[in-house]
Amino acid sequence: MLTNAEIKRIKSLKDKKFRDEYGQFVVEGEKLVGEALESAFHVAAVYRQSEIGQETMSRISQLSSPSPVLAVVDKPEPCSVALGRGLYLGLDSIRDPGNMGTILRLADWFGINTIFASIDSVEIFNPKVVQASMGSIFRVRTLYCDLPEICRRFRHADMPVYGTFLDGEDLYGINPSGEGLIVMGNESEGISTEVSAVVSSRLLIPSFAAGRGPESLNVATATAIVLSEFRRRR
Amino acid sequence: MLTNAEIKRIKSLKDKKFRDEYGQFVVEGEKLVGEALESAFHVAAVYRQSEIGQETMSRISQLSSPSPVLAVVDKPEPCSVALGRGLYLGLDSIRDPGNMGTILRLADWFGINTIFASIDSVEIFNPKVVQASMGSIFRVRTLYCDLPEICRRFRHADMPVYGTFLDGEDLYGINPSGEGLIVMGNESEGISTEVSAVVSSRLLIPSFAAGRGPESLNVATATAIVLSEFRRRR
Repeated sequence: MLTNAEIKRIKSLKDKKFRDEYGQFVVEGEKLVGEALESAFHVAAVYRQSEIGQETMSRISQLSSPSPVLAVVDKPEPCSVALGRGLYLGLDSIRDPGNMGTILRLADWFGINTIFASIDSVEIFNPKVVQASMGSIFRVRTLYCDLPEICRRFRHADMPVYGTFLDGEDLYGINPSGEGLIVMGNESEGISTEVSAVVSSRLLIPSFAAGRGPESLNVATATAIVLSEFRRRR
Repeated sequence: MLTNAEIKRIKSLKDKKFRDEYGQFVVEGEKLVGEALESAFHVAAVYRQSEIGQETMSRISQLSSPSPVLAVVDKPEPCSVALGRGLYLGLDSIRDPGNMGTILRLADWFGINTIFASIDSVEIFNPKVVQASMGSIFRVRTLYCDLPEICRRFRHADMPVYGTFLDGEDLYGINPSGEGLIVMGNESEGISTEVSAVVSSRLLIPSFAAGRGPESLNVATATAIVLSEFRRRR
């Protein structure tokens, strides 16, 4: 049995304020809870509808159609990072939770272990990000940071900083490095001026539209194209 | 001034049933309405908040935050298609409006003029598809059809039918044709058995995850990767 206080506490985790206060977030669904249990994350509690009943489950769930299982998971401690040689992803003010979840899934698919996200990017423990990531939040480490500063650290370590722009160099024509940082920009503003200033290689995804085409691509699909292009060459 | 009957009629276009009955759909926002006006589509009416007032606009709008302009656009007549040589996209039961809109935008970007969608795919005049497509619905023609039959027509015309599977041939290793049909499958089920039987080339997007990674990619990001790979080689 769950007390009303416990129900209220679990429910409160839908808000970032309480996720920060308690250092926990919620995961729902057999598959995602299974991924959490197999991951290095600490699962604080698992609630099954068969044990707590449908009514209680619908009270603690953040989904419109509650699933049969819900877990409360501890957020990992923020860790400072020593920059090893390798390929990283940088996110400059990604705001849409669906995009963030999709990008985490892509990073996982393409073997990117660490993402640096600007502090104004959407939090990865947002329930919509957790669901859209399909479990990848448990395998890809996301660090919220001063992104321009991280870019400068890459440059100081003699690693390239790539960014996508509407006036860059043809992505298909470059010889991509197996190390460095690939920065993807905000949904409507693109990459910020401060980060742009530290980018060492400006890339363009060329359009093949015969006449007038779209002005840009969605950031998650652009990330898919860039990561595919970097990885297929290795 | 709009009469109550007119308001009710415009509002009803949020449902597929009435879009089919009236042969019209709604477009909102300065940019999208501009794209509609410049396109080959017939714009039946344009309503501006400055003319009809904020209250009326909020009654006819399908958005939670109404934009200053809304247009009612005639759906194009379905046209039977003579298959020219070239590259086409086939969608097998794509259900999510966001995915459909994103795929339309990608097709537009990569110069695909015609999409064949199975009849159980989400309708492109669904308001969420219209918004997510960012205007590409006015430039890319989508035909709802018997997809297995269309696949057979490609094969009879000696054009390849490509499909993505979890056990296909490495996408990066093939020599893609500049013509044929690329089929993308349903969000959870993938490509149907009936369509699979007509596919001539089974493709796999390889994962680069070092250990255990995600089981699959989102269909819109998979479409981005495949179209990028086909087009960069031409």
